Amino acid sequence: MEKEVIDLKIDIYEENQKIGEEIRKELTARNILSVNILGSAGAGKTSVLVRLIERLKGIPVTVIEGDLETDIDTRKLQSLGIDAYQINTNGICHLDSPMIRAILGKKEIAPGTILFVENIGNLVCPAEFDIGEHLRIVVSSVPEGSDKPYKYPIIFQHASAIVLNKSDLMPYIDFDETYFREGVGVMNPSAPVFDVCAKDGTGFDMLAEWLTGEKAKFKQK
Amino acid sequence: MEKEVIDLKIDIYEENQKIGEEIRKELTARNILSVNILGSAGAGKTSVLVRLIERLKGIPVTVIEGDLETDIDTRKLQSLGIDAYQINTNGICHLDSPMIRAILGKKEIAPGTILFVENIGNLVCPAEFDIGEHLRIVVSSVPEGSDKPYKYPIIFQHASAIVLNKSDLMPYIDFDETYFREGVGVMNPSAPVFDVCAKDGTGFDMLAEWLTGEKAKFKQK
Repeated sequence: MEKEVIDLKIDIYEENQKIGEEIRKELTARNILSVNILGSAGAGKTSVLVRLIERLKGIPVTVIEGDLETDIDTRKLQSLGIDAYQINTNGICHLDSPMIRAILGKKEIAPGTILFVENIGNLVCPAEFDIGEHLRIVVSSVPEGSDKPYKYPIIFQHASAIVLNKSDLMPYIDFDETYFREGVGVMNPSAPVFDVCAKDGTGFDMLAEWLTGEKAKFKQK
Repeated sequence: MEKEVIDLKIDIYEENQKIGEEIRKELTARNILSVNILGSAGAGKTSVLVRLIERLKGIPVTVIEGDLETDIDTRKLQSLGIDAYQINTNGICHLDSPMIRAILGKKEIAPGTILFVENIGNLVCPAEFDIGEHLRIVVSSVPEGSDKPYKYPIIFQHASAIVLNKSDLMPYIDFDETYFREGVGVMNPSAPVFDVCAKDGTGFDMLAEWLTGEKAKFKQK
């Protein structure tokens, strides 16, 4: 019984990875940069996306929203004029590559687009599923505490960039930013960390500049 | 292949449930009240526990700490003189009943104890695994936002009580408490909601009173 579980787990990951690689190849060929947005429930992933997209003027953007239930975030994005599609996983704790393939089969995305995929709010499971992305942005937030890189290392290890949101709450919280940045640095020394506040927009110019740079490098490939 | 996955998933849940029920029966016979503490990463589960335990004078307490990695929280509890044991799941996104059984086989817990089990920080997976608990406390927090009961319904549905932590941040955050409480009310009308602030201890007397009441009822059974 135990062995069967382990074998099956490997099969699921392998199949997911295979489809993820196919999606990435197809998106690359169409010059669509895919960005997986990960973070805990309530880190502010959607609000970060809104502020970031505001600063990507001239670049077409599409968002796929992953949620267990509801389309609260998709409606929020659509009300701002952003192309957004919903995936409801009905209780599944992460997005996987077949879910993304199903959406891409139904929706036409223009070449040159940045495709943001907002994953389920969870620092654990989504880290282990390739969804065909080129980049991963991990959104952490000040009220979650400065020990998160130590406690949830895998998600930080595989991040292309880390966004530390709700920087406006720093004065009200015992958040040790040096400890946080050291934790990230040990796990993932090359990933930039951006302090931002989605509430007032602070710090988003640098994040947008970094992503625009990544997009330019991507196009040259 | 797909059928095999589904069958196996059921087997895992069934086996977990069976062991959970055995644990609960054994703990009940020994007058040990088991409380599963659930919540997102960074909701403040450990800090809530510390404040709650401070107010349970005269009741013996033991804590089992679940984390992917590290024993940061266990050391924190032990430094306060609290009996605490660590489970590191090495990447698994939830505690399960065999993990609890393994700890209980190794550690002697006195009759009359409240056994707190702090689950992995995750609003999704831990909700689906019975770990032999009598009560479930879900810790949510103001900075996570007021839409959490709608987006993560299962964990709120099965809560015995809900703790809304970091109430001191209310003035700095667009948190709609009516919307939050309505969401809980629809999902789980009988569960009390306690507004607390683990930073300064506000609201913990009522939470401790509720738990002491639950313990008294438990003993009478």
